[in-house]
Amino acid sequence: LAGRVAPLGTTVFSEFSALALQHGAVNLGQGFPDFDGPEAVKEAARTAITEGVNQYAPGIGLRALRVAIAEHSARFYGQQVDPDTMVTVTSGATEAILCVLLGLVDPGDEVVLFEPFYDSYDANIGFVGARPRYVPLRPPDATHATWWFDRDEVRAAFGPRTRLLILNSPHNPTGKVFTREELEFLGGLCAEHDARVLSDEVYEHIVFGPARHVRAATLPVFADRTVTVSSGGKTFSLTGWKVGWFIAPPALNDAVRRAHQFVTFATATPLQVAMAAALRLPDAYFQELSTAYHARRERLLAGLTRAGLEAHSPEGSYFILADISGQGHGDDVAFCRHLVTHVGVAAIPPSVFYGPEHRHLGRGFARFAFCKTDAVLDEAVRRLEEGL
Amino acid sequence: LAGRVAPLGTTVFSEFSALALQHGAVNLGQGFPDFDGPEAVKEAARTAITEGVNQYAPGIGLRALRVAIAEHSARFYGQQVDPDTMVTVTSGATEAILCVLLGLVDPGDEVVLFEPFYDSYDANIGFVGARPRYVPLRPPDATHATWWFDRDEVRAAFGPRTRLLILNSPHNPTGKVFTREELEFLGGLCAEHDARVLSDEVYEHIVFGPARHVRAATLPVFADRTVTVSSGGKTFSLTGWKVGWFIAPPALNDAVRRAHQFVTFATATPLQVAMAAALRLPDAYFQELSTAYHARRERLLAGLTRAGLEAHSPEGSYFILADISGQGHGDDVAFCRHLVTHVGVAAIPPSVFYGPEHRHLGRGFARFAFCKTDAVLDEAVRRLEEGL
Ligand SMILES: CSCCC(=O)C(=O)O
Ligand SMILES: CSCCC(=O)C(=O)O
Repeated sequence: LAGRVAPLGTTVFSEFSALALQHGAVNLGQGFPDFDGPEAVKEAARTAITEGVNQYAPGIGLRALRVAIAEHSARFYGQQVDPDTMVTVTSGATEAILCVLLGLVDPGDEVVLFEPFYDSYDANIGFVGARPRYVPLRPPDATHATWWFDRDEVRAAFGPRTRLLILNSPHNPTGKVFTREELEFLGGLCAEHDARVLSDEVYEHIVFGPARHVRAATLPVFADRTVTVSSGGKTFSLTGWKVGWFIAPPALNDAVRRAHQFVTFATATPLQVAMAAALRLPDAYFQELSTAYHARRERLLAGLTRAGLEAHSPEGSYFILADISGQGHGDDVAFCRHLVTHVGVAAIPPSVFYGPEHRHLGRGFARFAFCKTDAVLDEAVRRLEEGL
Repeated sequence: LAGRVAPLGTTVFSEFSALALQHGAVNLGQGFPDFDGPEAVKEAARTAITEGVNQYAPGIGLRALRVAIAEHSARFYGQQVDPDTMVTVTSGATEAILCVLLGLVDPGDEVVLFEPFYDSYDANIGFVGARPRYVPLRPPDATHATWWFDRDEVRAAFGPRTRLLILNSPHNPTGKVFTREELEFLGGLCAEHDARVLSDEVYEHIVFGPARHVRAATLPVFADRTVTVSSGGKTFSLTGWKVGWFIAPPALNDAVRRAHQFVTFATATPLQVAMAAALRLPDAYFQELSTAYHARRERLLAGLTRAGLEAHSPEGSYFILADISGQGHGDDVAFCRHLVTHVGVAAIPPSVFYGPEHRHLGRGFARFAFCKTDAVLDEAVRRLEEGL
């Protein structure tokens, strides 16, 4: 056992998906839809397989997909990127995140990230021997309509060894969508400290008005320093396909590619062909995705309220953090274990997404995913109403 | 640019595949078949996509595939492995290799490996801050019928800091199939130094009698210390699917899984379903694979000879290292550049698969892949006969 993996347990997603299966629980834990991706995209994958597109793709990704990624960036964000020097395909966003750390961060460097965080960020910072500097997001309160951060706390986290800031908007698990003004403040700090930025935007198309997704890299302060990471899993309800990508200015892209070629080398070729087709779906597809998720959000929020679980309405992503502090199970991990075992609903305890110092800040919440059909959301709510 | 990627160029496979495309060369460089995998396996993938098996698989892999991997190990090697605690699915063997390094090797540890090596070994050793200890394989000569190693050189490479030995049999690029006796000698050194073993066996089903593939982990000296890495890419002519796996005793498997969950987390679900079907193909499939590759080997060997390139006949893999020392192009890189540009055939210069000290040992060879249809092999030979 190497030192860098010694502190790591099994990821909470595997743990609670397994518990859900074992106890026949309704799974609102790990974030995968229980409905399928677009038929046209599936058909494109089947056709690619039939036609023999089954050998290694170029390590940087099929050109057709890289072009589609570039077109998508132009269509939705007015971002102009060169598909050959600025776009690279990876085996999911998770791989892209590791490649950014491997390609840009040296042992001893510091990485600033917000809590709660997607757990692979923290593990990957450990893998490269860097030091995490955590800044907690604070829950909505009398003066803040949504999750927020203390600017002095962020400022204090930056220093002479800061190499990278990790952004994630829309944010998993809080559902916060960072505003342009917040991003500009953060970008200013990065400029001041000559830091690079990893912007994880995998929930970019699951955003609820009036909130709007801002692609960080389109702000001038971020343009030269940012690696944007995204994937098709959430946008096209095909989380199991594991096709992701990163977009960055040529020099940064080159550094991250150097890592990528020795992490997975290449990504499933026929699924790349299909993902290119997905990214070219008409605007209506993306609008309907948001509309459908908006309805699911409202449905689950109302149900949670009926079950006595208050929650702030997320501006983006398909997650809701519900307040469980009044439920009297000690902490979120105990609550979620109870929930999956005795109530028959799987949720994710967010305290695992904090460093040790701020872990207590997550203890009063549980994360529920609403990427599920109405019947499943309703059954989960029924069980919560009955069991809590 | 982080220090660990600074010394890395673009992998030679990408470089020469791109050159081949650019110059319209016949590509005997990167090792991907120009024929397709079994129709039944492709059909299984299409069906899985149709039936909606498109969301995250468990991080450790679909149980159906893990069971199929265990059955395959029992069928071909009499190796009994528990699919739940000893088998993990990865996004290709390349990912598995990185996970072994991340999970088992600490910074400052030493890793023993043979030259020439698959280039990701060396890059991955750098990623985890370990030190490579290279042992060159020596070409066949008057007293050695095949590629061989000097036992004293291997012994000298082991020491108190040795944490891992990397084995690769059948060996890329020499085509050497390590004998049971050679493996036992190497296992003895590992036992003496309490070293773990990464055994990369991706060419396990491309072996030409009288050579026989020995699964290292079935030898008692290796059983407790070995992570076997393999994949479906070469065996089923589906290199673009990127479904690999590792097999190890529970404690080792657990260490490597800890890394895997934060490298790619999971692997393309519908392709996992199909790979389970592939591993259950009847014995005849595997026999015919070897027979077909035997014929291709003979065809390319004879053609190379006609073109004036002498080569040792590989016992396994789909690569031939041809002697180019008489061709007068300075070194293998210059020769391969000339070949792809002016002769219209892409081959891989093996000197890039050596550390700096022994690089000269690779300069007299070029690697030709014979995972190609007869027409393509014949056209390559025609160009070589004409152009050399
Ligand atoms: C490995 S799970 C990826 C992220 C997600 O779906 C989740 O947070 O549940
Ligand atoms: C990334 S290429 C994988 C190995 C191979 O096919 C080769 O050596 O050519």
